[in-house]
Amino acid sequence: MTQSLVAGLEPPYYTAVFTSVRADDPEGYAETSARMQEIVRELPGFLGYETARTPGGIGITVAYFRDLDSLGVWQHNAEHQAAKRHGRAHWYDRYSVHIGKVERSYSFERA
Amino acid sequence: MTQSLVAGLEPPYYTAVFTSVRADDPEGYAETSARMQEIVRELPGFLGYETARTPGGIGITVAYFRDLDSLGVWQHNAEHQAAKRHGRAHWYDRYSVHIGKVERSYSFERA
Repeated sequence: MTQSLVAGLEPPYYTAVFTSVRADDPEGYAETSARMQEIVRELPGFLGYETARTPGGIGITVAYFRDLDSLGVWQHNAEHQAAKRHGRAHWYDRYSVHIGKVERSYSFERA
Repeated sequence: MTQSLVAGLEPPYYTAVFTSVRADDPEGYAETSARMQEIVRELPGFLGYETARTPGGIGITVAYFRDLDSLGVWQHNAEHQAAKRHGRAHWYDRYSVHIGKVERSYSFERA
């Protein structure tokens, strides 16, 4: 889990917004999540991610990529695809993915 | 707070991803948040939103709009701008906003 925000990126860049409904602590989830983070961090063009989850509510993860090619490498990564198959079979009741091109962004930080 | 996912939208559409770090239950936040939801729901072109927040961690809200015009109406709404000013002064340590155009999305729902 990351606690810091992704900020200061120079547009254009791409976001993959992953929203999901699942049980609170499904078996094997934490290990797979940690492994996915290891993989994605090594990918060229990966710019960072954020994740939040309301207990008993929904989860949202946003991953940032420099371009669609780097995002595609992540989406087609074999371990990632296997994790998604497992997630559909065992963890997730529902999820959605929205792939967006960011042309504008801004940040605030308290002085 | 919404518990259901925004799904089944037909691209293209726009996302405003708002990520933030703030105290857990700041004074006046819940009331302002409820009022902002009232306003945005009435706006033409508003397609829905999702929000998640890890206790002690970060919050992520994703709002969906049909086009940049409707998103701009929301961003320039006077009550919304006043709420943002108040938020910068009193609630948020940091936040970022990423405005993206979604060209591709997909959803899963367990049978």
